[in-house]
Amino acid sequence: MREVAVLGIGQTKISEHWDKSLREIGAEAAFAALQDAGLEKVDALFVGNMLSPLIDSQNHLGTYLADWMGFWHQGAVKIEAACGSGGAAFRVGLMAVASGDSDSALIVGMEKMTDKAGHDVTAALATAADADYEAEQGVSFVGINALVMRRYMHEYGWKHKDFAPFSINAHANAMHNAFARLHERITVDKFEKSSMVATPINLLDASPIGDGAAAAVIVPAEKVASLKGRSKVLVAGSGAATDTIAVHSRREPLFLSAAYESAKRAYEMAKVEPKDINVFELHDAFSIMSALSLEACGFAERGQGVRLGLDNEISPKGRVPIATRGGLKARGHPVGATGIYQIVEVVQQLRGECGETQVDGAQIGMAQNIGGSGATILTHILRTA
Amino acid sequence: MREVAVLGIGQTKISEHWDKSLREIGAEAAFAALQDAGLEKVDALFVGNMLSPLIDSQNHLGTYLADWMGFWHQGAVKIEAACGSGGAAFRVGLMAVASGDSDSALIVGMEKMTDKAGHDVTAALATAADADYEAEQGVSFVGINALVMRRYMHEYGWKHKDFAPFSINAHANAMHNAFARLHERITVDKFEKSSMVATPINLLDASPIGDGAAAAVIVPAEKVASLKGRSKVLVAGSGAATDTIAVHSRREPLFLSAAYESAKRAYEMAKVEPKDINVFELHDAFSIMSALSLEACGFAERGQGVRLGLDNEISPKGRVPIATRGGLKARGHPVGATGIYQIVEVVQQLRGECGETQVDGAQIGMAQNIGGSGATILTHILRTA
Repeated sequence: MREVAVLGIGQTKISEHWDKSLREIGAEAAFAALQDAGLEKVDALFVGNMLSPLIDSQNHLGTYLADWMGFWHQGAVKIEAACGSGGAAFRVGLMAVASGDSDSALIVGMEKMTDKAGHDVTAALATAADADYEAEQGVSFVGINALVMRRYMHEYGWKHKDFAPFSINAHANAMHNAFARLHERITVDKFEKSSMVATPINLLDASPIGDGAAAAVIVPAEKVASLKGRSKVLVAGSGAATDTIAVHSRREPLFLSAAYESAKRAYEMAKVEPKDINVFELHDAFSIMSALSLEACGFAERGQGVRLGLDNEISPKGRVPIATRGGLKARGHPVGATGIYQIVEVVQQLRGECGETQVDGAQIGMAQNIGGSGATILTHILRTA
Repeated sequence: MREVAVLGIGQTKISEHWDKSLREIGAEAAFAALQDAGLEKVDALFVGNMLSPLIDSQNHLGTYLADWMGFWHQGAVKIEAACGSGGAAFRVGLMAVASGDSDSALIVGMEKMTDKAGHDVTAALATAADADYEAEQGVSFVGINALVMRRYMHEYGWKHKDFAPFSINAHANAMHNAFARLHERITVDKFEKSSMVATPINLLDASPIGDGAAAAVIVPAEKVASLKGRSKVLVAGSGAATDTIAVHSRREPLFLSAAYESAKRAYEMAKVEPKDINVFELHDAFSIMSALSLEACGFAERGQGVRLGLDNEISPKGRVPIATRGGLKARGHPVGATGIYQIVEVVQQLRGECGETQVDGAQIGMAQNIGGSGATILTHILRTA
């Protein structure tokens, strides 16, 4: 594989974009990334999206965006892996450039979730679960995660408020990210008193839906000549792995084996270990997922992921900085776009563009995107050159 | 790019599989391809599908199939490009193996279209068109193609019955394909008297929907040692291109510019010309598309694609054999699976396994899969080594 660099990044604010269509927010992020890269055209376009057939009555999203942008006569395709669609699209784009087929690729994660009433979004999100064996039982996506969190608390003896640091850190970091959905500092007290969604998951355990798009432009590393003093960001590692879709089918429902496998592959490819990672944009769709991801990726022992938060290790000044731009929890979680937001944020960290939440001297960053309840996991490691 | 070979193929009969679920037909084709390849596992799985979020309330199809097959701990992802999803998935799989990331890949195209009432399928298929500027006007997918056919007849002076050879050839060839949806010989008279769908497209101009899955296993060419006397089939060329989604936005609505571009790239990569192609599995979703594809890919002058049928050049014994296993028209068109059926059929021709419809001495074959009304086009050229 030839080495690949991230040359440009772009994103829209995550919000309720009533005044913009899906293709408009997609193009906004895409053109921002192209401008950042200093390119007008690319060889291929890859779009990560999960819900547009259901929410927007629109399939064919690769060409849909290419057409709107005036990018005809090149390849364009959509990649879907539930909430892991963005990371999966990034990985597919990486293969296209690494193989030598394309000399540049634009990868866009885009999602509109607020165009229809809430219950439609919940039903649409349930298509990430197993239609026959999970959704058919009436369990929602948050319900599945609530069962996992309950079991984790029972198994390892943690209380609900022990998860508060994950949410508090994410909200604090989002205060300094203009693109974030939520700008609101929270406290342990507020965390504990938040409205219940599905016991024990309350509103402040859960990431908010939203409309948003993020984009990255990648090229062969050898083609990146000078970057006007900006750090060159390489894609050092990429790993993908899957588990059963239904949590009830797993031997160990509290261990994200696909996170373990995909991180292992990314670590091996990048020739690094967990201790080398300076910033980790993980998939905190629910606070329980932060704990499980930290454990599976080698940052904590099983059942001890929560400890990292309680020990204040997860802030930008800590040993394992996570959700440095707000994470899914406060930056927001427009599902198919999330994986690209994570890539964009790691690049911002490696370029030293994060201001108040900058991780000092960040040189190696990891982004991990999850589809379903740990079923499809994509891990990417970026580093400065 | 390292050279890639197709090691195994598999398919299900295209039918109304009331007794089988989407994952069951997908796994049936996938295991057949693995058995044909002599492999038990692969490094990565790519699924082409368009309609499952709408028809089956199921997203996340890569992992959904991987899980059902017991293929955990590897990457799995879905690729969607409307009716071009199968070809697009094949191209993504090709990149994964060509890049060196994966040493084997399984690509499965799978679609169930008969699980709900007819009007649901028509509405679901309309998501390939532009939701705001086409579907919103009430035009169906066949309606869009009818407008194109009408214009073609007006512009070049052809009559409806001049398209009959495309349909007659496809139906004649499908008689010898056990996996085909329709086994019924037709005549010009029957073609002319068939029920109207959207003037001038009648039932025998249009391909039937159906449930079906097809699969291919690809590996690096250098890893294919001995094949027990069977021809080694290489992926010699791959091209992708797009056009506007809405036909009304095109400068020349009667020229498939994306077919031209994607075929040009595939020809260049394979270092061949149209005259070198021994068999061409084209995307005859409607008879008009056969004519337009032949023209855009360099087999006929503009407006003269119909002539190839009238001159009897398109049969397995002709100069440009098309739809040799029945094509979309008679083998059937389970949309997201079609692109892989085409690959499977080209491989069968290159291996010399087609019996009555075998093209003598076929060494180079082309498969072209189309998403939307010519909006996304994937072209692959395979050849014997």
